[in-house]
Amino acid sequence: MTQDTLKHQLYVIIFGTHTPAGKRFDLILIVAIISSLIVLILDSVPAFADQWQKEFDILEYIFTAMFTVEYLLRLYCSPKPSAYAKSFYGVIDLLAILPTYLAFFFPAASFIGIIRLLRVMRIFRILKLVRFLQDSNLLVRTLAMSQRKILIFFSAVAILVTIFGALMYVIEGPENGFTSIPRGIYWAIITITTVGYGDVVPQTPLGQAVAALTMLLGYSILAVPTGIITAELNQEMKAHRSLVLCPNCTKSGHETDALFCKHCGGELADPDQRVVPVKHPSPPEE
Amino acid sequence: MTQDTLKHQLYVIIFGTHTPAGKRFDLILIVAIISSLIVLILDSVPAFADQWQKEFDILEYIFTAMFTVEYLLRLYCSPKPSAYAKSFYGVIDLLAILPTYLAFFFPAASFIGIIRLLRVMRIFRILKLVRFLQDSNLLVRTLAMSQRKILIFFSAVAILVTIFGALMYVIEGPENGFTSIPRGIYWAIITITTVGYGDVVPQTPLGQAVAALTMLLGYSILAVPTGIITAELNQEMKAHRSLVLCPNCTKSGHETDALFCKHCGGELADPDQRVVPVKHPSPPEE
Amino acid sequence: MTQDTLKHQLYVIIFGTHTPAGKRFDLILIVAIISSLIVLILDSVPAFADQWQKEFDILEYIFTAMFTVEYLLRLYCSPKPSAYAKSFYGVIDLLAILPTYLAFFFPAASFIGIIRLLRVMRIFRILKLVRFLQDSNLLVRTLAMSQRKILIFFSAVAILVTIFGALMYVIEGPENGFTSIPRGIYWAIITITTVGYGDVVPQTPLGQAVAALTMLLGYSILAVPTGIITAELNQEMKAHRSLVLCPNCTKSGHETDALFCKHCGGELADPDQRVVPVKHPSPPEE
Amino acid sequence: MTQDTLKHQLYVIIFGTHTPAGKRFDLILIVAIISSLIVLILDSVPAFADQWQKEFDILEYIFTAMFTVEYLLRLYCSPKPSAYAKSFYGVIDLLAILPTYLAFFFPAASFIGIIRLLRVMRIFRILKLVRFLQDSNLLVRTLAMSQRKILIFFSAVAILVTIFGALMYVIEGPENGFTSIPRGIYWAIITITTVGYGDVVPQTPLGQAVAALTMLLGYSILAVPTGIITAELNQEMKAHRSLVLCPNCTKSGHETDALFCKHCGGELADPDQRVVPVKHPSPPEE
Repeated sequence: MTQDTLKHQLYVIIFGTHTPAGKRFDLILIVAIISSLIVLILDSVPAFADQWQKEFDILEYIFTAMFTVEYLLRLYCSPKPSAYAKSFYGVIDLLAILPTYLAFFFPAASFIGIIRLLRVMRIFRILKLVRFLQDSNLLVRTLAMSQRKILIFFSAVAILVTIFGALMYVIEGPENGFTSIPRGIYWAIITITTVGYGDVVPQTPLGQAVAALTMLLGYSILAVPTGIITAELNQEMKAHRSLVLCPNCTKSGHETDALFCKHCGGELADPDQRVVPVKHPSPPEE
Repeated sequence: MTQDTLKHQLYVIIFGTHTPAGKRFDLILIVAIISSLIVLILDSVPAFADQWQKEFDILEYIFTAMFTVEYLLRLYCSPKPSAYAKSFYGVIDLLAILPTYLAFFFPAASFIGIIRLLRVMRIFRILKLVRFLQDSNLLVRTLAMSQRKILIFFSAVAILVTIFGALMYVIEGPENGFTSIPRGIYWAIITITTVGYGDVVPQTPLGQAVAALTMLLGYSILAVPTGIITAELNQEMKAHRSLVLCPNCTKSGHETDALFCKHCGGELADPDQRVVPVKHPSPPEE
Repeated sequence: MTQDTLKHQLYVIIFGTHTPAGKRFDLILIVAIISSLIVLILDSVPAFADQWQKEFDILEYIFTAMFTVEYLLRLYCSPKPSAYAKSFYGVIDLLAILPTYLAFFFPAASFIGIIRLLRVMRIFRILKLVRFLQDSNLLVRTLAMSQRKILIFFSAVAILVTIFGALMYVIEGPENGFTSIPRGIYWAIITITTVGYGDVVPQTPLGQAVAALTMLLGYSILAVPTGIITAELNQEMKAHRSLVLCPNCTKSGHETDALFCKHCGGELADPDQRVVPVKHPSPPEE
Repeated sequence: MTQDTLKHQLYVIIFGTHTPAGKRFDLILIVAIISSLIVLILDSVPAFADQWQKEFDILEYIFTAMFTVEYLLRLYCSPKPSAYAKSFYGVIDLLAILPTYLAFFFPAASFIGIIRLLRVMRIFRILKLVRFLQDSNLLVRTLAMSQRKILIFFSAVAILVTIFGALMYVIEGPENGFTSIPRGIYWAIITITTVGYGDVVPQTPLGQAVAALTMLLGYSILAVPTGIITAELNQEMKAHRSLVLCPNCTKSGHETDALFCKHCGGELADPDQRVVPVKHPSPPEE
């Protein structure tokens, strides 16, 4: 086996997702990432850290070793190692192992260990590659299509929140917890999103009246993103539903009451027969 | 009357739901279950327990006796007693009466009495059997059809909540109540679902800015499940309509109050008859 | 003018809504009801009550006198006075004036004055009569059509809330504020509706994990009523939109792409001409 | 260059938006407005104000000078200066600069400086003029079309909130924080909008039961505005589609990617040309 063949085989396993070995590699990697995240999270709990600090450290060293080997293999089998090292996921991969080495050599720097939580980003790469979550495409596309509307919505919320935050700062003042306009804006966001911590609340009757108005106004305004996403999803799902293929041009995407193919003008099958695929919509999809 | 006939008659009454006697049995059972639940709930209130402990105990013994008789009868008349005893509802039925006997013989074990609240599960069996809630099929089917999308949504929420929880743990630190990453995640869930207890709140300006971002981000993301369920319900409700076919042109998609086909003008079947499939949508499926 | 004519004319003014005098009467009445409600509300504020108690009392006497005259007139001009007195609104009308007389003669009974707030119910009668809020029909009908689905939804919520409330009572116990199962249920409702007062919150890690689960579960379940109402409204609005009249049978309610009247089978006008009424949907409505 | 030409050129730059110079002017203005808002907001934070008071004051003088020059130029180049001065935006423009002069000459009046936050309103004018946010038309039109339904909804909420607020005032009383009916209404709004600050909470079991009812009732009622806006948006988005007519059978309702009429199979106009009306939906209307 030449070195090039080995390189290529490694590449197919590590970067690819379609071979059985590639799938096994991805599965092991995802288990390792999630396990290392759980160790990191449990390590932050004082009660657990006191008792199992040593075990957590050993596990962390094992995971770091695994991820280091994986990183070096990726560098080795990648056709352009420097391109990989500079890519988004290349940097994430490095940041996922570097803190442990730094903490080992410079114990004082242990607080940067939190950067290791970026490992969670590595899950995205695997999910993206294997595309085993077909439905997420629909959701992501819907969000992408609504993004301009959502941007406008957030601009409106930003302006409203500034006005109400400043208004409450003037009405309530520092003596009631509204110590600055940014704090007033913080209160307005808590109120308009209906989170309502209760750490900053109006004390004066006028302030409470304005707060009540903010809540009601906020509530009906926040119905807007739900409306946008629902309407968009509705359109998307309808487009997906009509999996009928035109017998002439084999294109799909026809509305349920269409008589002729909208792509080539060929006559379509009877609408009542077409109802069938609605019940099993997944098979023909990519 | 032979024993087999008695067994069968009991079976029809206890397990069946279509005979008047079976319906009466189900009604009595559901009243007994709800009454016993109310007694259990009231028994947990110190003020009531102090005053009526004896009455509560007597009522509990009566209900347990009733459910024991019912359990034995079910065992007796069931064609395969062991299969019933091992089934999901067989175990629930046993767990609903066992704690009272255990608490009677081992008074120290009275805290396990809470298991009796599993009786609430028994209501589901009766509801499932009598199917008197036809509309719930539509709701349950909608939720079932959306489950993959909802799973994806929850994965995205889990990742977001981990990132924001860890971020706040780093920013705020133990001195401001964020004593560990799990606590940060707890805060992130409280914030992203807009519950907002206010027991863990950011104290630093930077933490409050990140919290404001979490709220706004969380709000627009949480519009997604609403959108999914609404769009799915919309399609389901439309699908209900299109069950009627025009006898003339065999096209579907007519509104529930239509008398004539909107495609060819042919006369449709009687609307009162057409209402039928809407009310029993399950048979033709699966 | 005979007494009967006077009676009838009074009846038309007081109970009717179509004559100019009837409309003026309704308008005066609605202003009086709202004014008297504002006086009652302000009277409950200690600071205002201390300063203007006398003025509030005088205004209340004036309103009571007005409503008493109105009540007597209604009794007088009603064709069946006893039927009116026993009707729902007849009782409300009496309850709206009685407390003031009782408080006058038995000063100790002044706390029952709160019953006067039932006057707010009287607004409904006027709104119902004048029907000046046409759109509310659509909303009310939508809610009415969804009521079975909403009932099922609330049953599911009730069962969930009982299970989670009892679970938290067992996990957290009285020492952490969960003093009884009803208090646990109260906590579960606060959490599942995302209100989140923060007066009862879990203290133990296990309790917080269950709380986080409740929030996420609750949130996706609570998307259901929004979905139900939206889907129902969508159907209703679509039905409303197609205000096209069939030239043959003059019935409306056709879908936007219908070619033939679904009521009589008569041919309809061109769909592209029918798009016009969509822009001015109110005039032809009843 | 005559004075009239200068006036007109200035007018085109300052009031117009279509020339490159006009666009540049708008961009500079919007940056200046947002910068001056940030300075005002930071100035309200005690920590920043202590350290950079002088720098903030200088920046504020510069912005005021800029806006003053702009205001004078607008007055100068406007065809009817007095009409501009009395217009809505003319008054806003004046209020945006006046407080700084007042604070300079009467230092005691510095608290009115908050009026300068009205500058945020000036952003709206620019956005409105340049119309670079086409999608916002759809959102605004949807909200405008739903406004009657939303008004009815708010009336219903107002009545419910009054009833529940008064009920809690009677049940809980001043000793539990419900010191007056308005405070009860404030609590009811906090609860029904699911904000849930927790500053006013029921203490008695009966009060908590009513609160639980308010939450559940409130939640299902608040699904209504979401439903209204979603259904309206859905209709609006569908209406966008049906602008294309088939040249053969003159029917509309085609999907945006259709090449052939789905009713008769006739060829449709080029999709790229058809996209046009979707992007500029306002011209043909009203």
